[in-house]
Amino acid sequence: MKRDNDKLSFASDNHAPIAPKILQAIIEANVGSAAAYGTDTPSAETRKLFKLAFGPQARAQWVFNGTAANVLALKTLLEPWHAVICAKSSHLNLDECAAPEAVGGIKLIPVESPDGKLSPHQIREEIVRRGDQHFAQPYVVSITQPTEWGTLYSLEELEELRDLCQELKLKLHIDGARFSVAAAKLNVDFETIAQSSGAAAISFGGTKNGLLGAEAVIFFDKSLEERFRYLRKQMMQLPSKTRFLAAQFKVFLEGDYWRELASIGIDLANHLSEQSRQIPGVEIIQKTQANSVFARIPKHWNKTLRESAFFYVWEESSNTVRWMFSFDHEINDVNEFLETLRQLSRDDQCSHSK
Amino acid sequence: MKRDNDKLSFASDNHAPIAPKILQAIIEANVGSAAAYGTDTPSAETRKLFKLAFGPQARAQWVFNGTAANVLALKTLLEPWHAVICAKSSHLNLDECAAPEAVGGIKLIPVESPDGKLSPHQIREEIVRRGDQHFAQPYVVSITQPTEWGTLYSLEELEELRDLCQELKLKLHIDGARFSVAAAKLNVDFETIAQSSGAAAISFGGTKNGLLGAEAVIFFDKSLEERFRYLRKQMMQLPSKTRFLAAQFKVFLEGDYWRELASIGIDLANHLSEQSRQIPGVEIIQKTQANSVFARIPKHWNKTLRESAFFYVWEESSNTVRWMFSFDHEINDVNEFLETLRQLSRDDQCSHSK
Amino acid sequence: MKRDNDKLSFASDNHAPIAPKILQAIIEANVGSAAAYGTDTPSAETRKLFKLAFGPQARAQWVFNGTAANVLALKTLLEPWHAVICAKSSHLNLDECAAPEAVGGIKLIPVESPDGKLSPHQIREEIVRRGDQHFAQPYVVSITQPTEWGTLYSLEELEELRDLCQELKLKLHIDGARFSVAAAKLNVDFETIAQSSGAAAISFGGTKNGLLGAEAVIFFDKSLEERFRYLRKQMMQLPSKTRFLAAQFKVFLEGDYWRELASIGIDLANHLSEQSRQIPGVEIIQKTQANSVFARIPKHWNKTLRESAFFYVWEESSNTVRWMFSFDHEINDVNEFLETLRQLSRDDQCSHSK
Amino acid sequence: MKRDNDKLSFASDNHAPIAPKILQAIIEANVGSAAAYGTDTPSAETRKLFKLAFGPQARAQWVFNGTAANVLALKTLLEPWHAVICAKSSHLNLDECAAPEAVGGIKLIPVESPDGKLSPHQIREEIVRRGDQHFAQPYVVSITQPTEWGTLYSLEELEELRDLCQELKLKLHIDGARFSVAAAKLNVDFETIAQSSGAAAISFGGTKNGLLGAEAVIFFDKSLEERFRYLRKQMMQLPSKTRFLAAQFKVFLEGDYWRELASIGIDLANHLSEQSRQIPGVEIIQKTQANSVFARIPKHWNKTLRESAFFYVWEESSNTVRWMFSFDHEINDVNEFLETLRQLSRDDQCSHSK
Repeated sequence: MKRDNDKLSFASDNHAPIAPKILQAIIEANVGSAAAYGTDTPSAETRKLFKLAFGPQARAQWVFNGTAANVLALKTLLEPWHAVICAKSSHLNLDECAAPEAVGGIKLIPVESPDGKLSPHQIREEIVRRGDQHFAQPYVVSITQPTEWGTLYSLEELEELRDLCQELKLKLHIDGARFSVAAAKLNVDFETIAQSSGAAAISFGGTKNGLLGAEAVIFFDKSLEERFRYLRKQMMQLPSKTRFLAAQFKVFLEGDYWRELASIGIDLANHLSEQSRQIPGVEIIQKTQANSVFARIPKHWNKTLRESAFFYVWEESSNTVRWMFSFDHEINDVNEFLETLRQLSRDDQCSHSK
Repeated sequence: MKRDNDKLSFASDNHAPIAPKILQAIIEANVGSAAAYGTDTPSAETRKLFKLAFGPQARAQWVFNGTAANVLALKTLLEPWHAVICAKSSHLNLDECAAPEAVGGIKLIPVESPDGKLSPHQIREEIVRRGDQHFAQPYVVSITQPTEWGTLYSLEELEELRDLCQELKLKLHIDGARFSVAAAKLNVDFETIAQSSGAAAISFGGTKNGLLGAEAVIFFDKSLEERFRYLRKQMMQLPSKTRFLAAQFKVFLEGDYWRELASIGIDLANHLSEQSRQIPGVEIIQKTQANSVFARIPKHWNKTLRESAFFYVWEESSNTVRWMFSFDHEINDVNEFLETLRQLSRDDQCSHSK
Repeated sequence: MKRDNDKLSFASDNHAPIAPKILQAIIEANVGSAAAYGTDTPSAETRKLFKLAFGPQARAQWVFNGTAANVLALKTLLEPWHAVICAKSSHLNLDECAAPEAVGGIKLIPVESPDGKLSPHQIREEIVRRGDQHFAQPYVVSITQPTEWGTLYSLEELEELRDLCQELKLKLHIDGARFSVAAAKLNVDFETIAQSSGAAAISFGGTKNGLLGAEAVIFFDKSLEERFRYLRKQMMQLPSKTRFLAAQFKVFLEGDYWRELASIGIDLANHLSEQSRQIPGVEIIQKTQANSVFARIPKHWNKTLRESAFFYVWEESSNTVRWMFSFDHEINDVNEFLETLRQLSRDDQCSHSK
Repeated sequence: MKRDNDKLSFASDNHAPIAPKILQAIIEANVGSAAAYGTDTPSAETRKLFKLAFGPQARAQWVFNGTAANVLALKTLLEPWHAVICAKSSHLNLDECAAPEAVGGIKLIPVESPDGKLSPHQIREEIVRRGDQHFAQPYVVSITQPTEWGTLYSLEELEELRDLCQELKLKLHIDGARFSVAAAKLNVDFETIAQSSGAAAISFGGTKNGLLGAEAVIFFDKSLEERFRYLRKQMMQLPSKTRFLAAQFKVFLEGDYWRELASIGIDLANHLSEQSRQIPGVEIIQKTQANSVFARIPKHWNKTLRESAFFYVWEESSNTVRWMFSFDHEINDVNEFLETLRQLSRDDQCSHSK
């Protein structure tokens, strides 16, 4: 497959192109005039598909990117003095250039978590000083599914969080930039995750899953609709030609096209994880439960390996790297990469034995 | 031409589809992996095209929509205690759901202007209490070109504003959601407007001019680059798959495709304006200098007329309406609309004469 | 009376010292430990006095200054997409360095008003585009009583506003930095103004009325209490040693000490207004209904006149000046000032007649 | 000493009254008119005293409370995309109801620290991803001196931090709500701490050290003056009758009155710490280096002990309590409290031995 600069990239699923059926949907939506700002026919139809996919209470709206989906989901749920419990490694905390704080005015309470997941115990520990005006009051727990470390909450773990939130009067938000990957890996539909978690709001990703660019914010409480509507516009996330965002999601949901797309990345990550962990020098440091593999490798491998496919170093000090896959990667891409890994490992062993 | 619900719309240029060459550019950009967040090859190439179009100092970046382009352009220029002088009728003041204030923390100083244009005299009157800590200090003048009322600043008027801003140490921002319409109507290139106005920042529209969705923010001072870069991400306007936004702008700029697209709307507006002003009952209330016509018509015409083509009532009390055109409208569309207008007028005259 | 730099000041009522009984109250409150943050005994007692003064629904809390009282009152009433209708000349719009916008994220809709008062008609004109997500929704009308121009809404005018707000589902806020001056001039108690206006929130001034420094924010809806409590702390307006603010207000309210203090400034303003309007060259440009006089005088008088007592030029172009009085001024101060005015006037007439 | 509700309080140094000389200074400042907003004579004089105390580069301004001093100090130093490294236990992070985030838009990076102090190593670990637009860039380190846990950075530790900040191009902010306690305990003057730390900004507390209510923000870079001036007003922290705040600080600084006041609390804390650690059941869990003692005691002691003097439970789970002292406490107060502690301890031992 031809690539930008003829370079294969395992850097991120947002390096991928538009999936074929998604592009076709955009082309087909490009007929004549259409109302703007979400009042178009494709938007109305797609909102119905979201109800089918996430349950009859689900109300979906489109925004431009994942940072916005997260901040808007939270801002809609929160009063100004509320705080959000999240993993220290979450995108919300580390990768949004302080958008939650600077644009949303939202205080995050970051919690250490080696695998990116929050435990009920950790959440419970943060629930202190209720009613104390000096202390920003935790009100939302934001989890990432799958996490930034490519790990997954099981349905049982989600149910535990749901029960805890109910007990402690907290709301759950899911950063689901790769929500479809989670559903595909857990082999369930979206509604099952929504119900197991009892989520109040979900940031549902499209851009990292084969779309040109669109994210959905899903609420399950009708009374938030007006609030979200104004906040979306105010936070500069109301697209005008919404038909083209809606059309992407429509074909994404229809016939579970999302599952087809997600499965490709999942399978390739799994393949690389299984194979590479047998290579001396490679240490797989997280469970491989999504479309990414996190490994520690000798730092001097990076250069050669990146000629095979570009990837990011996730943590400098330990040379932890992330290899990530999407629908446009093929088994051959991964096998060639594995071959390079094996060669680097052999080279090391030779030089050690000298 | 087939339309959404088989309905012709003169409501807004964002009801239009994607222009053919723009869509083709998206399709062609959809090949293999590409770096994200503006580090892709199409973005680099398109930034060069913007330098050709706006002058060698111009530095362009993409954002999602026009509200964001405006707020980001201003936020990049301003300190927190600065204020922005703008027309009361500006999009900034009336149509962005307080995004400047709520997201940017920006104080606007709205100035009455029947035709949407600011005069040097009006600006000068607002420059008071300099250095007074109690008073938000005017620092940017934001004009719209063409204005919300479809009027244009001439090059001479822009030069006057430039000189005034220089004298008073103010910066000029242009909300150019339809900048290409202005250039086409003035029959100049973009650089001429940029130089005549001495603009510090321009919000350069794409979405209302035939793109799927993309706006550019252009600065002319290299030292603002870092500031804009962080603010764009923080204000949730950094697209990931930037190649698809860049590709749209690339073809828009190449061979002055923008002029071809803009001219269609301009000519149709002109045609409707010239013809309709001869119809008893129709009062054209603004100069027709862009792709829109503002008219006062009898309120009881609205319903019948909207069956011919949908449009917005701009001011309820006087039944001022806006008719707006884009590249996908045809002379026949306008002529049919004119015919309906004439019939409504005749009906009125008959009933009066009874 | 000895003064800072031996200079008499008619510049502002915040140039005044602490009124004698207020200072005495601070001294008497200075005994032993006391709980902080509003949980002290004097605060509890003073809250009761506010209920007596403003009606049983009134709930008062202390903040540090008037800007904060206004922004907090509004922030407590508003959703982020709401806007506030106010006079263009209001303190909120002109004298708070964009605090409403920058700290509160609040959009103001400033309305031209030569005497600083808003008419029902003006308010009604701003109520458009209800439910339109693009348009910040007017929700609060903020009036100043007395206004920045020293004028007053009569009880009848307040009742008209109350009825209008009820009809249009708007809330009324009163910036009452000099509320006690209004009540003294109208010769009513506070509750009468509160009821006539139907105010949802009042910024009740102390600092400009003889206190060392304290303002109260009064709400009439219990359900706002929690909201205000957190917002006050978050907006950095929760004093710790609240007993000393409460003690000031306590003695201010007790035995209508406020009326005694306010009457001095009112009477002196009235005296100066009546006398000076008879002096050729002096034009009194507003009704004198509070403790200030607004006059146009020849610009070349300023220097000499300021040697008699310092004052501010309110509008440069017309040399409109403000003379303002407080409890620590005496009739002799004003009479000496009048003498200087008369001398300046005579000098002018002599030189003209030459 | 007579107390509110006849109750002795070891809860906080803001439960204390106004120190005698401070109150006297307020009384003496209450003469005639004075200019407002910091342009008064006492403010000018007191700014000079701050230069004497903190070094010739020091520029001090007054604000109302400590939360504001912190947020304003930081906001003045930061660009919107900067982040602040602070201890997880800092007032900034835990006790300001998200004011940094909600009002300042500031992202905090809280770091675990059992004794409230940040180590150079901890700071260095947070300096990653420089120049990465997705990541809020750490720019300020905010330390508390003395910390919330009553511990102190030594001059050597401050010098280490200064060197580290210089190396990493970071700015140091000191939350000095009890800065005078730190200087008294370290037995140095203020300038020594300022120089050792190389602080860019200091929040210098008054209210917790015997003032009625005033905090200073001190910068050491003249170029920040204008920025601070506007931001203070905008963030609603510009007092009008500044002479009364300045007068308090003036007498606080003159003749090292601050040292006299601080020493009382320090000595009492030291006495209680030394004596109580010998009582079975009392565990002193932090070094006693300021005017507070942190101890773990059996939970069932709380009720009886609070009848002797009120105090706060700092951590529910371990029943960690804080006992805090100020200038108005006396050795007898502490000795009676110790007696109660000893009795509770004896009671426990008796019941155990049964």
